[in-house]
Amino acid sequence: MNYIHKVQYYETDKMGVVHHSNYIRWMEEARIDYLDRMGYSYAKLEEEGIISPVTGIQCKYQKPTTFGEIVSIDVSVKEFRGVRLSMEYHIFNEKGDLVFDGISEHCFIDAEGKLLRLKKLHPDFYELLTTLAAKNKE
Amino acid sequence: MNYIHKVQYYETDKMGVVHHSNYIRWMEEARIDYLDRMGYSYAKLEEEGIISPVTGIQCKYQKPTTFGEIVSIDVSVKEFRGVRLSMEYHIFNEKGDLVFDGISEHCFIDAEGKLLRLKKLHPDFYELLTTLAAKNKE
Amino acid sequence: MNYIHKVQYYETDKMGVVHHSNYIRWMEEARIDYLDRMGYSYAKLEEEGIISPVTGIQCKYQKPTTFGEIVSIDVSVKEFRGVRLSMEYHIFNEKGDLVFDGISEHCFIDAEGKLLRLKKLHPDFYELLTTLAAKNKE
Amino acid sequence: MNYIHKVQYYETDKMGVVHHSNYIRWMEEARIDYLDRMGYSYAKLEEEGIISPVTGIQCKYQKPTTFGEIVSIDVSVKEFRGVRLSMEYHIFNEKGDLVFDGISEHCFIDAEGKLLRLKKLHPDFYELLTTLAAKNKE
Repeated sequence: MNYIHKVQYYETDKMGVVHHSNYIRWMEEARIDYLDRMGYSYAKLEEEGIISPVTGIQCKYQKPTTFGEIVSIDVSVKEFRGVRLSMEYHIFNEKGDLVFDGISEHCFIDAEGKLLRLKKLHPDFYELLTTLAAKNKE
Repeated sequence: MNYIHKVQYYETDKMGVVHHSNYIRWMEEARIDYLDRMGYSYAKLEEEGIISPVTGIQCKYQKPTTFGEIVSIDVSVKEFRGVRLSMEYHIFNEKGDLVFDGISEHCFIDAEGKLLRLKKLHPDFYELLTTLAAKNKE
Repeated sequence: MNYIHKVQYYETDKMGVVHHSNYIRWMEEARIDYLDRMGYSYAKLEEEGIISPVTGIQCKYQKPTTFGEIVSIDVSVKEFRGVRLSMEYHIFNEKGDLVFDGISEHCFIDAEGKLLRLKKLHPDFYELLTTLAAKNKE
Repeated sequence: MNYIHKVQYYETDKMGVVHHSNYIRWMEEARIDYLDRMGYSYAKLEEEGIISPVTGIQCKYQKPTTFGEIVSIDVSVKEFRGVRLSMEYHIFNEKGDLVFDGISEHCFIDAEGKLLRLKKLHPDFYELLTTLAAKNKE
């Protein structure tokens, strides 16, 4: 599924291109949009007491992007084993060039920081993530 | 009282200078440091249930600054009348040039967003702000 | 003219609402979109050597916004007298409440930082800004 | 070598802790400070036409940090083979707990984006990085 982001002026740095930290934010934008479209609004999950912090990032900056460009972010579930979730991102510019790829790792915790087992707490969300991860493996 | 900020690379934009939104963040850095030195840690105030959101900003960008520069932020209480607080900022570069001046306006609320009257709730903090505002008028 | 912004998770702070510095960025997003729709892409203006830094900001934070909300930004030319431009912004939440209003002030400079007179250099852009400012006065 | 960063209010998000994207910025702060202390100011390198973009990031978020904390960033050269440089970071809170560790990868390019060979262009800087990488291996 694709998420579209218009590169903002305030996202550039004095190198004339987007500062690398912003891609981490774009991953978040795309991830939240993806969950939203799957019927799992992150705002709603948080209201239900499910917090999903980022526990790791791995990424490669392939080509610079800059102000005025529109990037397309392809996001998918890479792996899910009940407790840990990893998601995958490929960002393309308007010419179709890969400009960035990355992986984010997540866990699920409650407000006190205790790890949650989605299978019990949220079986439908668990089911969805399992299915999406399986699809990704095909 | 002066607060020192080292300009970061990620604070610049493609114009080659600091993006104007960052000065608003520097005002916050300086304000929090100022309260801290006055004995009123913002973290502690929040733990006591006192939140002080920004209700207004007025500022002038006088000269650009960029990566590698060190700026000095002069901060003071401009006005305080029990409910509303305004603070004043002058930012200077290493040559002593004024690069920015601004005013931030604040109120004090509790976790539910209800306006707090500091005089009752926190008479010592009320006293301090009143004294600092009077000193500024001299 | 209205610009739509979806509030991002990374735009919130520990108060649970959008950090006030981000509204300054949203003003920029809306301003650039506005000029774009008027036929004056900011990226193109910069390529032609016209830079338009922010010289001042005045704003009022009326109500908080937070992650998951979609805000609508109404932007217009407030005043233009050949050298200095000011623009006006009203931001509304989905219920139609005014959450923020602000004014940004700008000048036009070249790469060396010299003030540009648009009337000579870019008569069509000068004409447009003059017309828009007059319309705002009506 | 250690770099000290005071966690800012604007670096937190509605989870009540520092937003994960900011650690990427702290890596940059620490890296620039490290090069500075080694006698290679990044601002000066850029003036000489040497740009060093980030080409990759790998990191683990071990524990949250929040507003009011002071973190200490341990930074070192992990590997250098003439063209590609990788640097390593360990961030600790005031209790001495590891809160984050990461690696950043870099190359060296000129203003046109062409890869630079430091050995020819900047033999002293090449020598330093080689020495630091060897020291890290010990």
